[in-house]
Amino acid sequence: MTSPNFFAIDKLLANKPRLKAGHVWLAGAGPGDPALLTLEVLQALREADALVHDALVSPEIVAVAEQAEKLFVGKRGGRLSIPQSDINALLIRLAREGRKVVRLKGGHPTVFARGGEEAEALVAAGVPYRVLPGITSAFGGPASAGIPVTMRGVNGTIILATGFAAVSDDRPNWRTLAATGQPIVIYMGLTHLAETVSELLSGGLAPETPAAFIENATLPNERTVATTLGQLGSTATAENIVSPSLVVVGGVVALRDRL
Amino acid sequence: MTSPNFFAIDKLLANKPRLKAGHVWLAGAGPGDPALLTLEVLQALREADALVHDALVSPEIVAVAEQAEKLFVGKRGGRLSIPQSDINALLIRLAREGRKVVRLKGGHPTVFARGGEEAEALVAAGVPYRVLPGITSAFGGPASAGIPVTMRGVNGTIILATGFAAVSDDRPNWRTLAATGQPIVIYMGLTHLAETVSELLSGGLAPETPAAFIENATLPNERTVATTLGQLGSTATAENIVSPSLVVVGGVVALRDRL
Repeated sequence: MTSPNFFAIDKLLANKPRLKAGHVWLAGAGPGDPALLTLEVLQALREADALVHDALVSPEIVAVAEQAEKLFVGKRGGRLSIPQSDINALLIRLAREGRKVVRLKGGHPTVFARGGEEAEALVAAGVPYRVLPGITSAFGGPASAGIPVTMRGVNGTIILATGFAAVSDDRPNWRTLAATGQPIVIYMGLTHLAETVSELLSGGLAPETPAAFIENATLPNERTVATTLGQLGSTATAENIVSPSLVVVGGVVALRDRL
Repeated sequence: MTSPNFFAIDKLLANKPRLKAGHVWLAGAGPGDPALLTLEVLQALREADALVHDALVSPEIVAVAEQAEKLFVGKRGGRLSIPQSDINALLIRLAREGRKVVRLKGGHPTVFARGGEEAEALVAAGVPYRVLPGITSAFGGPASAGIPVTMRGVNGTIILATGFAAVSDDRPNWRTLAATGQPIVIYMGLTHLAETVSELLSGGLAPETPAAFIENATLPNERTVATTLGQLGSTATAENIVSPSLVVVGGVVALRDRL
């Protein structure tokens, strides 16, 4: 092995805690591209003997955990997803069996990924845990699509919201978000798209506001389709946009033509 | 070399572009902890022969670029910073000299880091570039501080804003942000803190809203101090909070006691 990367990674991780038996690490896999894994998540995957993962994690990333039993808990092909309480119970059981557990999520574990709930359940059960950050798709996607999330003279604020809210309390209030006039990146943007657009327009954003879909962000089949807020619905149909797709709304989208 | 990480990293990067002579890669170093580097940024640093970096990048990360000439362009110890136009010109000159250039920034290159401006200058000069994402401190910091950025039943929206705006157009409108009632993470939160707090209160947030400073996020000297929105100013003084510090405002901060 002669890769110049070899030297660096072990040295950079020398002072970090190692995954121990009976512990659970809530780790972010990033938006999809394995090159966006962090060094500490890579090492955790190499050391895990149990890997609990979602549908949004790339197979290449799951395969990094060569020694681990793989436990898939995501939703795929329209099947019902496993209840969160069952996932919590699974993590606790694996920890109590003395396993080295990595709970791997797409993106960042505590940004629209229910990592906070799992942390709460682990604490209640007395299971030690850590949160290992991952690149969130709302930033990774625009980076490869040529959209700067912030730009001098355009915005000093960026809003991240979810198109899919598990409970109604979490449904973003699109009108008050629109009233800020600031760019918004919407995770799972196809879910409730018509309602989201309608509310953003009611909140005062112009139909001409630049907008874009970023489908399969950072994956080889990533696709960006630029349009306007008012045309998001018809563009989704005409271009046959599929999930997972980010929706970006705001002036920063227009910068893509120059970048 | 027997680290189990060695096998994985080269395989995961096998299909990625390599840094070429005459190209500039705008790379995110993350919030500070070298363990949060992504695999592709690690490789770019190993391959660079010119590294242009800011003050917010950790020395351990700069040192990864063993073969590169290091060009420091940040502000330190109160000295005037180098004008952005000079940094742009430097990147273009290095590229035209046929160097393999990494422009390394704290956090993510296009989130309050002026990566968009540099990209624009490179495009105008005909210099090929890529943006390599990094973990943003607004997510990396709360992860190590025990604060979930989103939580089911608490929020479906998170707002990121900067306390330091280079031009007045970028100054966040704190009143409209407050009116959303959603949690806010403020980068460079000590800058203009009194005005920020005053405007958030005027916008309708209660003085009792949970709030916290996260100083030196993800570094060995990270410190989290929890308080309330109304007490941020007095807490900053009493606890002698120093830059760089995030300020987190909103209900998710209160979850720290349970996590």
